Amino acid sequence: MTQHTVRAFDEDLTRLHGMVSDMGSRAAMAIELAIKALEQRDLAAAAAIVADDKRIDELEAEIERHVVTTIALRAPMADDLRTMIAALKIAAVLERVGDYGKSIAKRVPILSGDRTIEGIPLLASMGQLVCEMLRDIMAAYAGRDADKAEEVCARDRKVDEFYNSIFRASVTYMMENPRSITESAHLLFIAKNLERAGDHATNVGEMIYFAATGRHMDEREKGADITEAGSTSSTGA
Amino acid sequence: MTQHTVRAFDEDLTRLHGMVSDMGSRAAMAIELAIKALEQRDLAAAAAIVADDKRIDELEAEIERHVVTTIALRAPMADDLRTMIAALKIAAVLERVGDYGKSIAKRVPILSGDRTIEGIPLLASMGQLVCEMLRDIMAAYAGRDADKAEEVCARDRKVDEFYNSIFRASVTYMMENPRSITESAHLLFIAKNLERAGDHATNVGEMIYFAATGRHMDEREKGADITEAGSTSSTGA
Repeated sequence: MTQHTVRAFDEDLTRLHGMVSDMGSRAAMAIELAIKALEQRDLAAAAAIVADDKRIDELEAEIERHVVTTIALRAPMADDLRTMIAALKIAAVLERVGDYGKSIAKRVPILSGDRTIEGIPLLASMGQLVCEMLRDIMAAYAGRDADKAEEVCARDRKVDEFYNSIFRASVTYMMENPRSITESAHLLFIAKNLERAGDHATNVGEMIYFAATGRHMDEREKGADITEAGSTSSTGA
Repeated sequence: MTQHTVRAFDEDLTRLHGMVSDMGSRAAMAIELAIKALEQRDLAAAAAIVADDKRIDELEAEIERHVVTTIALRAPMADDLRTMIAALKIAAVLERVGDYGKSIAKRVPILSGDRTIEGIPLLASMGQLVCEMLRDIMAAYAGRDADKAEEVCARDRKVDEFYNSIFRASVTYMMENPRSITESAHLLFIAKNLERAGDHATNVGEMIYFAATGRHMDEREKGADITEAGSTSSTGA
């Protein structure tokens, strides 16, 4: 590459990282605001989260177009290619995290009746943990920081423990309050969405680690989702 | 490109499509076998599905390496690049479908006690619909058949209707049989996994349609997940 091409490619990469970071902020924000809307039973805020998810989807499409154009134009070497493909994969994961935020927001109207619903404070604490993971993993992405990525991934165990507690508490609560079973089932799905968002932060962390070190992260002894028997990881649930 | 390079690139593309098709078959098979293991309470079969998921994950990694190598080696034009990026995205979706199969399989041991659990036949029918969608969408992928892709996507409405019925039936069942709440909650998660697998078949269909026509598929009036209020789509749930 000429010096001009190298600089142009660097600019392309910088723009790509900027778009991925923007997606990450928006996805973390979607989760944070969805849990807040749930706590405050704020239907307008919930509707806004659902509407804003379109921007996250658009960003993913823009990233894909940018990657294709950059590769076609600059024909980058294998290492740079891998960086761009990794950005594409991270964007796909962040799109899903945004979807989880949207999904939580969509349940707010169902859960905003007069009845008290047990478990929302626990969900809020779990949501906070997940949002911190997401924000910190995006900081690790920005700094290509493998150590930080590893540290963030280790926190997923705590999120899984939260999920397991909420599952058990919900089942008990449902048994004692059969009339609130519908609401509790929705809370259970929200807890699962948060648990999955934590898994996705971990997925991003693994990609950052691999991109920075060329090695795969050690199989952490992740906190298992005890609600899936024999589980050592809770992907896909 | 020289004629030699063109032929070599065609071979690369054929190999890529073969790997994606292989992933698709395995992912559909994981769902099918997981539901069968659930019906027959077959713990050994369930364990095998969990173990076999590794091969699906490996295939995704192989596809990624193959795409990076091919792009680096052949520097394909934008159209071919888009085809390869689409294959990468489809592979990522199929990996998730495989995860859903694994997740269902992991719940089999919990659900294989003596107690009768209502709802498994309904789940089995829903699973069959989803497997047919997955198989047919992979046939559309092999034939780059936009019409078939659209037809398969339209079926997702039926899967969503199944999910909604199962949700309502489970809640009623839980109210009447508080002692079976834990089992019913697991069934609810399995139904959700199947509903998501149907969504993913739809995602693949949309990618096939776009790759074949250059246009985005019309927003279908998808059957809404009524369990998420205001829902017109059930992504992320």
